[in-house]
Amino acid sequence: MENYDVNNNSSQLLHKLRQLLPRERLLTEREQLAPFESDALPVYCERPLAVALAESEEEIVTVARLCGEHRVPLVSRGAGTGLSAGAKPHGRGILLVTAPMDRILAINTHSLTARLQPGVPNLQISQVAVRHGLFYAPDPSSQIACSIGGNVAENAGGVHCLKYGVTVHNVVGLRLVTWDGEILTFGGECLAQPGYDLLALVHGSEGCLGIVSEITVKLTRVPAETRTLMADFASIGAAADAVSAIVRAGVVPAALEMMDALVISATEAFCQAGYDLDAAAILLIDLDGDPLEVDAEAALVEAVLRKFQATRVQRAQDEDQRQRWWKGRKSAFPAIGRLVPDYYCIDGTVPRHRIGDVLQAIAEFAEGYRLRVANVFHAGDGNLHPIIMFDGREPDALERVEALAADILEYCIQVGGTITGEHGVGTEKFNQMAIQFGDAEIEQFLAVKNALDPHGLLNPDKLIPSLAHCREYRVLRKKHD
Amino acid sequence: MENYDVNNNSSQLLHKLRQLLPRERLLTEREQLAPFESDALPVYCERPLAVALAESEEEIVTVARLCGEHRVPLVSRGAGTGLSAGAKPHGRGILLVTAPMDRILAINTHSLTARLQPGVPNLQISQVAVRHGLFYAPDPSSQIACSIGGNVAENAGGVHCLKYGVTVHNVVGLRLVTWDGEILTFGGECLAQPGYDLLALVHGSEGCLGIVSEITVKLTRVPAETRTLMADFASIGAAADAVSAIVRAGVVPAALEMMDALVISATEAFCQAGYDLDAAAILLIDLDGDPLEVDAEAALVEAVLRKFQATRVQRAQDEDQRQRWWKGRKSAFPAIGRLVPDYYCIDGTVPRHRIGDVLQAIAEFAEGYRLRVANVFHAGDGNLHPIIMFDGREPDALERVEALAADILEYCIQVGGTITGEHGVGTEKFNQMAIQFGDAEIEQFLAVKNALDPHGLLNPDKLIPSLAHCREYRVLRKKHD
Repeated sequence: MENYDVNNNSSQLLHKLRQLLPRERLLTEREQLAPFESDALPVYCERPLAVALAESEEEIVTVARLCGEHRVPLVSRGAGTGLSAGAKPHGRGILLVTAPMDRILAINTHSLTARLQPGVPNLQISQVAVRHGLFYAPDPSSQIACSIGGNVAENAGGVHCLKYGVTVHNVVGLRLVTWDGEILTFGGECLAQPGYDLLALVHGSEGCLGIVSEITVKLTRVPAETRTLMADFASIGAAADAVSAIVRAGVVPAALEMMDALVISATEAFCQAGYDLDAAAILLIDLDGDPLEVDAEAALVEAVLRKFQATRVQRAQDEDQRQRWWKGRKSAFPAIGRLVPDYYCIDGTVPRHRIGDVLQAIAEFAEGYRLRVANVFHAGDGNLHPIIMFDGREPDALERVEALAADILEYCIQVGGTITGEHGVGTEKFNQMAIQFGDAEIEQFLAVKNALDPHGLLNPDKLIPSLAHCREYRVLRKKHD
Repeated sequence: MENYDVNNNSSQLLHKLRQLLPRERLLTEREQLAPFESDALPVYCERPLAVALAESEEEIVTVARLCGEHRVPLVSRGAGTGLSAGAKPHGRGILLVTAPMDRILAINTHSLTARLQPGVPNLQISQVAVRHGLFYAPDPSSQIACSIGGNVAENAGGVHCLKYGVTVHNVVGLRLVTWDGEILTFGGECLAQPGYDLLALVHGSEGCLGIVSEITVKLTRVPAETRTLMADFASIGAAADAVSAIVRAGVVPAALEMMDALVISATEAFCQAGYDLDAAAILLIDLDGDPLEVDAEAALVEAVLRKFQATRVQRAQDEDQRQRWWKGRKSAFPAIGRLVPDYYCIDGTVPRHRIGDVLQAIAEFAEGYRLRVANVFHAGDGNLHPIIMFDGREPDALERVEALAADILEYCIQVGGTITGEHGVGTEKFNQMAIQFGDAEIEQFLAVKNALDPHGLLNPDKLIPSLAHCREYRVLRKKHD
C-alpha cells in the first residue's frame, strides 16, 4: 500500500499548505519540529516534513484533502501523550496536531452528553461537567494532559474502566475526516445505530482510518459516595485470587488495583502513602454509588478479602486517608523512577483468573534476563503494567529489555490475553500483532484499512503489519525459542 | 457488486452440496422450502434455491466456500425470528440455517463467560447459567425462540438493555466464517483487543459480512433482588418527562417500560394484569441489585415519579403481582392483535428527552392516514415500538401503513434518533438508510462491505443500499412532502 508521494510532490504540498495555514501554525524549521518528533515513547522518533496545528475541522479537512491529493503520508495526534509510539511522525509526511482544538462545544444535561473538539484534555471534561453533578468516566493516568481525540484513537482506559468501560463504551457520537477530506458522522444520542458500527471501528484505530474532528461523550452521574478499601496479602498469588473472587461474587468495584512489594516500598519511600511495607501485595479498591449500596458492597468485598487470606483489611477513615492511598498508587511510576536510571512500562491484558500465574512467569522471565520487574496495575481488568527496571548505560540493557517485553507480551497471548489493555499497538507492538493474530485476521484488518484509506496514507506502518512482515517476524521468534 | 452467479452455475453448486450434506439437511423441494421463505416479517418473502441446515462450523465453511467459488448468493439465519426481513432468502441463492447448531460448548465460572454455537436459543443460556447464579442479560421478546447467532447479526436488544447493554456489550468473542470459507477469531476474555474492532463491526451486520459460527458471551451475576414499581400518569407527556428525569437523577433501572391507554385497555382485557384503566400512560420499572441498593434507588425513583405528577405509584407486593404486571407488558402484542385484523410494529429510537414530542407527532401523522397507533416500548432507551393497527382487507390499507411507517421513522431521524433500536434494517428499512445517512457514510459502509465480501454474495440487497438507490429514494420522498 506504500504508493504515497510517488511524484515526490511534497514540496508542492508544503507550498499549498503555506497559503492556507497561518505561518505560526505550519512548522517546518528543524528547531520547531524537534518537540514533535515523538509521542511519550521517545525511543521511537522521526522528524516529519512539517507540523500542522489545526484550529478547526475545516483545517483538518484542508490538510487531509491536500495530503490525499499529493499522496503524502498524514499522521494525526492530539496531546502526544501516547505510550506506544502510535503518534510517531512519518519522515516523508505531515504531522497534524489537533491539540489546539480544545473547546467544549456543548454540555447536554437532558441526554447526559458533552460535545467536544478533539483537543479537549480528558480531565477538563469532568472539571466542567461536575457543575451539573456529572463526570466523564475513563481516566487514563495522563488525564491532565491527554486529549479526548487521542483517547478515541487509542481506545484509552484508566483506573475506573472496570465499572464504567473504556473509551468506546463512553462515546456516543463522532465526526471523522477521511483521507480525502470527506466528513463522516456516526452515532448520536441513541443506544443503537443502523449500518456497520464504524463508531466502534474508529476506537483504537490509532489514526489509521481517519482523523476524529468532533466527539460526543456520555457523562455519568457523580456517585453519592466513594469508599476505599485497602487489603494486604502475604503473597501475590493470594491477592490475585482475591481479585478474581471479588468479581465472581458479583461486585463491580469502581477501581480494583494491585501493587507488589517493589512498588509498595518505592511508593512509601516517595510519598508516605501509608502502605504496609511487610505486604507482598496490596489491593486498593474503590466502591461507589448510593451510600446504602456501597455499605452492602463493602461488606461483601471484605468477606471475600478475608476468605482469600488478606492479612489486613482497612477502610479509609476520611477523604484525606483515601487521597493519600490513591496518591501512592498514582505516584508509583515516578517512585520507581527514583530507584533506577531507566524503566519501561509494558501494557498487556490477561484473563482475570490467570493474573497469579502470569505474574510468576514474568518474574521468572525477568530473572533469565537479569532484570527486575515491578508490578502496579488494573487488576480488576486483568490489565498488567509490568515495569521493567534497567540501566540504559549498560551496553546490552535495551536489548534485554526488549526481549523480556516481547516474552511477556507473547506469554499474555498464550494464556488467552492480549498485547494491549489501553496503550495501543502503535509502533511499539507492531511485531506482536503477528503473534496475536493469524494471517486470516491480519488480511481482514488490511482489507478494512484499504477500504477507508485506499492509498495507505494515514499513519503508515502502524497498528497492522503486512502479511509479509507477520510471516517474517514469526520465523524470527521461532528461531529465538 | 452484483456479479454473482455470472455463469449461472447454481446447478453445479447444488450438485456439490448434495455430495457434502446429508439429504435431510439440504432442502430443495418446493414444500420443504415453504417454511423458510421469510423470517418473522412474512410480508417480505422469496423462495431460495435451496436451504442448507448446518450442524457444524465445518459445514458452514463448506457451504460458504462453495457459494463463494460459484458466486452464488448466501443468506444465513438462525431461528428466523427477525422482524425486519433481514433473513429473507435470495431467489437465486442458498439459505444457510444455523439453528441446528444449538450446543452450549462451555460455561466458564472463572471468567463469567459462556461459549456457544450460534443456534443456541437466547433464553436457554440463562436457563443453564442460573445454576451458577448467572444469566445472559439481553432479552429480546422472542427470547424463547431466537438464537444467539441471530442476536449478534441484529445486535438484539430487550427489556433489560438499559442497564445491561445490547448484544454487542455482552459478547466478548466471536468466530466468523468469511464469504470464501476462512475462519476468523476475534475477542476473548479480555477487556480490550488490539487491531480494528471487527467484533463490534459484526454486530448488527445482518449476515452481510460473514457467518457467525461461535459466540462467547459475558454472563452477569443474578441480582439478589428485583423490585418492580408501577406509576400511572394522566398524560403521555408527563410519563415521558418522568422517564428522562429518572435517568438524569443517576438511576439506571434494569427496565423502564411505557404503555399508553390503548395498550393498557387491550392488555387488561386480555390478561387482567392489574393496570389502571384510567391512566393515560403507565411506566413499569424494574430496579435490581443488592436489597439495600434497591431500597435506595426505589426511594429516589418514587420521589422523581411524584415530582413529575404520577397519579399513583405502586410497589409490587409480592412475586405474583410482579409477574402479573410483567405478563401484561409481554402480552401487549397479542392483546392488540385481538382488537384489529392486522397490526404492524415499528422500531425506532429517539433521544430520551424527545419521547413526549415524538409520541404526539406519531398520533398526528396517524390521524392524517386514518390509522390508529398503540405504544408500548423501552422508554428508558428511547426505543419506540409504535404498533400501527389496520385492516388489511381495506384496499389501500397497506399503502397507508407503509407511508405512516416511513413518516414515523423519518421523524425519528429528524429529532436526532435512528430508524432502529433492535429490529435491524434488513429489507424493511432499506430505503430509510438513505435518509438516516448521507452519501459519504453510505460510501464508507459499501467500502467496508466490499472489504469483507468483495463479490457481494452475503445477504445481497439488505442493510446498505447502493448510492444510486439512496439518491432515487431521496428524490421520491421529496416529491411526497
